[in-house]
Amino acid sequence: MKAFETVWRAKAGKIEEILTKSLPQAVQKPYLLHESMRYSTLGGGKRLRALLVMGACKAVAGDVGRTYGLAAALEMIHAYSLVHDDLPCMDDDDLRRGKPANHKVYGEAVAVLAGDALLTEAFAELAKMPEKYGVPPPIALRVIAEVASSCGSRGMVGGQVVDILSQGERPDLAVLEYIHAHKTGALISAALRGGAIVGEGKEEQIKAITAYARNFGLAFQITDDILDEMGDPDLLGKKVGSDRRLEKQTYPRLFGLERSKKMAKTYVNQCLQALEGFSEDAWLLRELALFLLRRDY
Amino acid sequence: MKAFETVWRAKAGKIEEILTKSLPQAVQKPYLLHESMRYSTLGGGKRLRALLVMGACKAVAGDVGRTYGLAAALEMIHAYSLVHDDLPCMDDDDLRRGKPANHKVYGEAVAVLAGDALLTEAFAELAKMPEKYGVPPPIALRVIAEVASSCGSRGMVGGQVVDILSQGERPDLAVLEYIHAHKTGALISAALRGGAIVGEGKEEQIKAITAYARNFGLAFQITDDILDEMGDPDLLGKKVGSDRRLEKQTYPRLFGLERSKKMAKTYVNQCLQALEGFSEDAWLLRELALFLLRRDY
Repeated sequence: MKAFETVWRAKAGKIEEILTKSLPQAVQKPYLLHESMRYSTLGGGKRLRALLVMGACKAVAGDVGRTYGLAAALEMIHAYSLVHDDLPCMDDDDLRRGKPANHKVYGEAVAVLAGDALLTEAFAELAKMPEKYGVPPPIALRVIAEVASSCGSRGMVGGQVVDILSQGERPDLAVLEYIHAHKTGALISAALRGGAIVGEGKEEQIKAITAYARNFGLAFQITDDILDEMGDPDLLGKKVGSDRRLEKQTYPRLFGLERSKKMAKTYVNQCLQALEGFSEDAWLLRELALFLLRRDY
Repeated sequence: MKAFETVWRAKAGKIEEILTKSLPQAVQKPYLLHESMRYSTLGGGKRLRALLVMGACKAVAGDVGRTYGLAAALEMIHAYSLVHDDLPCMDDDDLRRGKPANHKVYGEAVAVLAGDALLTEAFAELAKMPEKYGVPPPIALRVIAEVASSCGSRGMVGGQVVDILSQGERPDLAVLEYIHAHKTGALISAALRGGAIVGEGKEEQIKAITAYARNFGLAFQITDDILDEMGDPDLLGKKVGSDRRLEKQTYPRLFGLERSKKMAKTYVNQCLQALEGFSEDAWLLRELALFLLRRDY
């Protein structure tokens, strides 16, 4: 257990270092835009998506050093999605990662544009994978296609749209599952599948990791919903109760807290089952799944 | 002259056809998002950026059939940038390409997300260039890097930020040139350089086309500024006078209309000069530069 937390911290530190260097410096023009991009990407976040990339690459016995570009790119995409989600026309949240939301500091126009630029920068980072990290060009292109389809209208952005449009409506399991599979699940899937692809895993391994990803995404989102109901705002770095205020589609609202917790446990077990054919190399993915059951942030 | 207009119409039709097929269909979930993306991308626009891609490829005697993915992707990026530019927190424009702006029809949240999804879809399209159009993977990656750097914080988005932040300030040539080189110039440059790269032009040809691109971008923006002062709203498909209302940095504001027109002419001449070493293959680029002097939309 101790080892897991230490490895997480070390890997998160590595990604922080790469993001710090890769993102445009705040001394470059336009200063305010670059400051805003760095404000919402650096110095916060669990770096869970980066860990999933590395964990999946390791699980297929790949070269983890090749994954840094993908890991950094997905953290940029995650950051952009949070900046846009927090906008007044979306969830209208003021606090994120323990500090004021991007638009509260830089204004709405710069926040929209900082999100746009982070998304664009992520693809710039992905295009440099061959040059910076030795990823073969055809694999780099496959990963770019994977990330783009996961984050677009049939993936993450699609989930966000349905999340926004279904607020205030009667809870509905099909809608709830659509939102969760897309809004958070798609990026998690891109991280895991992308990591396995960069690691040049066999197609059957990628298939197993895809099953892990589906269950991980659901378990993650259920625990996220639970934390929004009963988490500690100080640990979470954001206000709680926002889902309830916006009458969002959530597991606790549809099933209650106790049943939601049981469901999370079931999905975590299915994560572990998906990894049954894997060696000790999959330990990080196993630990990450178990972490979901005790996460408090 | 006739031939030029006919070729333009034919090529624009080809791109419309590709965009119609490539963009997610409106019968796919989430319907409203896909409808919104299609609303702002299809059935309007000059397709100038697509033409520049094809013109540059042709100029280096490349295979124009290979450029369709890039041409479609840049039209998606252009459409996304217009959707975000028109938002209330940006230029707050109600009319675009002769119809209500995206956010007036679909609301702000969906407009922000449709823009995000169009940008993402553009990279999905670029990643498919090898498979769909036979572009070699290393060239595809070079093009993706080119597009990402041109459209990001040090390119198009950077220009938009400075445009927004400098509204109402005293006219300043350095600021004006920064905005124009980035906000419109960068995407135009990506189109031209990208087309030449896909066409596997020699480095010296790409250099000449880069010089053409710089001058074309400036001439284009000056004529755009002039049209915002004295164009016909019916032909333009948007309101005029918006730059003046927002006290934007423009050429007419800094130099007056007459001098601005002369400057546009000078830049167009420099476009033609940059192409001096090219054969008849560069005719489309030559015609496109000359078009800027008579454009009324």
